[in-house]
Amino acid sequence: MAKAKKSKRKKAKSKPAKKLKRKTRSTTSAARIKGKTASKRKMAAAATAESMAAKQRAISISEFFAKNRHLLGFDNPRKALLTAVKEAVDNSLDACDEAHILPDLLIDIKAVADTCGRANKFVLTIKDNGPGIIKQQIPNIFARLLYGSKFHSLKMSRGQQGIGISAAGMYGLLTTGEPVQIISRTNPKKMAHHYHVQIDTTKNRPQVVLDEECDFDLPAGTNVTITLEGKYQRGRKSVDEYIAQTAMANPHAAIHYNAPDGNTYEYPRQTEELPFVPREIKPHPYGVELGLLFKMARDSSTKQLSAFLQKEFSRVSLRVAQQICDRAKLRSTLRPSRITLKQAEALHAAINETKIRAPSTDCIGPIGAEQLEEGLRAVVDADFYTASSRNPSVYRGNPFLIEAALAYGIKDNRNSDPEKESSLRLIRIANRVPLLYQQSACAIYKSVLDINWRNYALSQSKSALPTGPVVLMVHIASVWVPFTSESKEAIAHYPEIIKEIQLAVQDCARKLRIYLRRKKRIQRELDKRRYIETYLPYIGEALQDILTLKRRQVDTVITKLKRVLEKSRKL
Amino acid sequence: MAKAKKSKRKKAKSKPAKKLKRKTRSTTSAARIKGKTASKRKMAAAATAESMAAKQRAISISEFFAKNRHLLGFDNPRKALLTAVKEAVDNSLDACDEAHILPDLLIDIKAVADTCGRANKFVLTIKDNGPGIIKQQIPNIFARLLYGSKFHSLKMSRGQQGIGISAAGMYGLLTTGEPVQIISRTNPKKMAHHYHVQIDTTKNRPQVVLDEECDFDLPAGTNVTITLEGKYQRGRKSVDEYIAQTAMANPHAAIHYNAPDGNTYEYPRQTEELPFVPREIKPHPYGVELGLLFKMARDSSTKQLSAFLQKEFSRVSLRVAQQICDRAKLRSTLRPSRITLKQAEALHAAINETKIRAPSTDCIGPIGAEQLEEGLRAVVDADFYTASSRNPSVYRGNPFLIEAALAYGIKDNRNSDPEKESSLRLIRIANRVPLLYQQSACAIYKSVLDINWRNYALSQSKSALPTGPVVLMVHIASVWVPFTSESKEAIAHYPEIIKEIQLAVQDCARKLRIYLRRKKRIQRELDKRRYIETYLPYIGEALQDILTLKRRQVDTVITKLKRVLEKSRKL
Repeated sequence: MAKAKKSKRKKAKSKPAKKLKRKTRSTTSAARIKGKTASKRKMAAAATAESMAAKQRAISISEFFAKNRHLLGFDNPRKALLTAVKEAVDNSLDACDEAHILPDLLIDIKAVADTCGRANKFVLTIKDNGPGIIKQQIPNIFARLLYGSKFHSLKMSRGQQGIGISAAGMYGLLTTGEPVQIISRTNPKKMAHHYHVQIDTTKNRPQVVLDEECDFDLPAGTNVTITLEGKYQRGRKSVDEYIAQTAMANPHAAIHYNAPDGNTYEYPRQTEELPFVPREIKPHPYGVELGLLFKMARDSSTKQLSAFLQKEFSRVSLRVAQQICDRAKLRSTLRPSRITLKQAEALHAAINETKIRAPSTDCIGPIGAEQLEEGLRAVVDADFYTASSRNPSVYRGNPFLIEAALAYGIKDNRNSDPEKESSLRLIRIANRVPLLYQQSACAIYKSVLDINWRNYALSQSKSALPTGPVVLMVHIASVWVPFTSESKEAIAHYPEIIKEIQLAVQDCARKLRIYLRRKKRIQRELDKRRYIETYLPYIGEALQDILTLKRRQVDTVITKLKRVLEKSRKL
Repeated sequence: MAKAKKSKRKKAKSKPAKKLKRKTRSTTSAARIKGKTASKRKMAAAATAESMAAKQRAISISEFFAKNRHLLGFDNPRKALLTAVKEAVDNSLDACDEAHILPDLLIDIKAVADTCGRANKFVLTIKDNGPGIIKQQIPNIFARLLYGSKFHSLKMSRGQQGIGISAAGMYGLLTTGEPVQIISRTNPKKMAHHYHVQIDTTKNRPQVVLDEECDFDLPAGTNVTITLEGKYQRGRKSVDEYIAQTAMANPHAAIHYNAPDGNTYEYPRQTEELPFVPREIKPHPYGVELGLLFKMARDSSTKQLSAFLQKEFSRVSLRVAQQICDRAKLRSTLRPSRITLKQAEALHAAINETKIRAPSTDCIGPIGAEQLEEGLRAVVDADFYTASSRNPSVYRGNPFLIEAALAYGIKDNRNSDPEKESSLRLIRIANRVPLLYQQSACAIYKSVLDINWRNYALSQSKSALPTGPVVLMVHIASVWVPFTSESKEAIAHYPEIIKEIQLAVQDCARKLRIYLRRKKRIQRELDKRRYIETYLPYIGEALQDILTLKRRQVDTVITKLKRVLEKSRKL
């Protein structure tokens, strides 16, 4: 494509004549355009280094995301409503899990007409029985972006970045001018705090509008109310769907949902057992980059290199630390804060050449194959269910684990045209949170697409999902799910992740193939029986004619014949 | 899908027996799983509101993007190298344009082997003849995220957010430990500043490592050097390709590029005319949201509502301001800082009911259809070229403009199999910056895909780009290009933008159809002539036999016949 002159260094040739000719022409036409536009449009004055410097200033992270709200999942009113619900529910479930409490959630959405009578304003309330939030933290958590407890810890949780709920509050403020309302109680012996807070976008700091004590009908818990512009619509990618899938991925939670259309949905708890609660781990040495290693060493308070390696990383024993130091040709007593960039380079290379155990998996808590299958059973009516769970694996130093569940023969009332077979329905879940948007950008979608489904008795056209009455659910649990955007809608295409997803899905697909082949055999058998029953009477008549038998004799012959024909084939 | 119990409010039924049975089973299996895992894995202790509060803290924007670097385009070494080049080039071109200087760019990339001998470290230098950067601003611009001059101004520019170049520096620091090196001169009478700066990620503030004066071989300009881990690879999505497309979209720039493989590419200036330099505008009232309007009014220093509307928004005259106030039933002398949310709601509704002129387009500077076609000619060899430019349009209050250029009959040496027709090649450009990644997520791709190309004489299979030797270039110019991520690789699917792209592309496609039909007719004609020439001698022989003519007579007849046959068809 590059038709530009390309030559070995120091041999760049002069312009060819053809180009010169063209240049002249283009200058003329450019002048023409300029002449045309200059008459209508005023050009900006030339800037200088000084005038440009005068305009330079810091941008607050809230201003940034207010303008780039689509990055956070607030691109349109329908998605905005879903994202706000999702962020609040994620926070509630995370808090309950951390405090070892079986979650009881109430989600209530009410439509409010604006001054012009359009129902585009919603009041969203999420109430949980979690541990509550202490008074001092409430303003920061709900009205400051990039503030939270989960960003700096390496363990599986729904929230990761400390943006979600405050972004939902900011979106509500921007579109309706209303602050976020929070009631939270941490102690059954004390009153609850009642706060109205809003974000100051130019500073990214909370403004407290109301601060009082009040009653609360639970011994501990939190109630969040956000007023925002949105759009409620049923169907795929709806709040209803998100809540149904959340119940499926969190069988230990009880959810009561009042939809804006007046419907009430009740998802009872499916298990009284708490899910495995993950523990925080240290980073694995294989994942660390040179610059970061250098900075960590320089900032470290440890006195010796060996101690630094053991303290700051997981899976580094005294013996492993010694091996790394030896290989890097560094004294193990070297003071980390005095390390040079060259030494850090040697250390970095040595780490990647030393054999170190894979990271511990205490930091991730899978749903479990059987629980996943149960979850699917609870929300989808089908003929066949199966599930599969992989062992933990690692990408870029981060442990992760894949689980999959599959249901075949679903009864879909929504498919109006029974002739046209619908595609496989894919349910994507990351750290127990359903993902509803950006399916085609997601590693899960890509993994499922790249499987040759014809090998598993399903039909599939090129670069499309297979067709059939199938629901497939894939769950990825990780200390850090690599989402493609802050709105956490799709998973980045790490080869390690794609491979694990395919192995889990193929395991389910193999079981499906066995089921389908068996079903097909039974079906064929039934078809044959039907033929026999259809045509035997005619054979009887023919025999009667040929052999001149009596009616009773014919019946005997037919009965015998039928028995022989059926026996000759095994089920 | 939602099999959960659904009922009209206040009529939630009790659990059915079937579910109870299942629940029991699921509890048993869950207990089994738990028993199995508990033996191997240690669960985290239960948290309380207090222990959770102790972990809450602010996250610096640099920490956030260091961990989420794929959001900024640093997902893999190859893309990281491209992104770093792109950010530096964008800044240089923006600075030259603002200062009305015809840009002269030198891009130099050198591979450096690391301690293990792998060539994964690159030293990247970009030098421009722009206005330079004043001393005080250098550390913030290059080592602080979210700092810049373009975020708060509404006009077209390549950079938007004040993240790019500092993120590239941060990535270099993280992967190699090396600081960013800057030499900048603003005044030919003074020496240049020489700085080495690096970002302190925990605080998002610059650290100055070196600060001295030095010589510089240009009267004014900037030279930036970043050392980073990367990967150089030719072909699509390469740095080479990016620079070729940049030259195409910026015919007023001269670019000299030394590639890491030793090749040198020279892109001479195609026009001596400066591009139209856009002016900053105020936001259009139609794009403002209630919450923002409320905040703007409360924070305004104006004394009267009417003055507030005229001062803060574009296209609001005294008459329009009065109309808005009347419709909102508010006094035009109301003090904006005392407005209530209810009044702001009325004002917001009134604005959207009042007819206001479309925003001014002085804020966007298109390349121009003819210049775009020239640019395409300069880098692609083809048989046919065309271009089209639309009038400015508006999405969410932001003006934008679409241009398209098309080349047909390109000679692609890289297509090894001439039998297999390749797909249309799409070149996407936003504010004169080529977009190389995430094509399928982009509004431009979607727009081109949704056109029925069979109407324009190209073959196309379902949900694929048309096939043929075609290069299509689409440029969107806007004060705020709505990218789907901070890495600025794809444009969000705004219906207004998709519509305009389709109109521009269809205009080019119509001209292509005329060309192709004509070409086909000529081809058909040539084929016929060939037939005539092939079969005429046989007709001659036949005539000779039938009419027993002499050789000379036959020649005369054939010549006459040929003339008649050819004349009977018009070219």
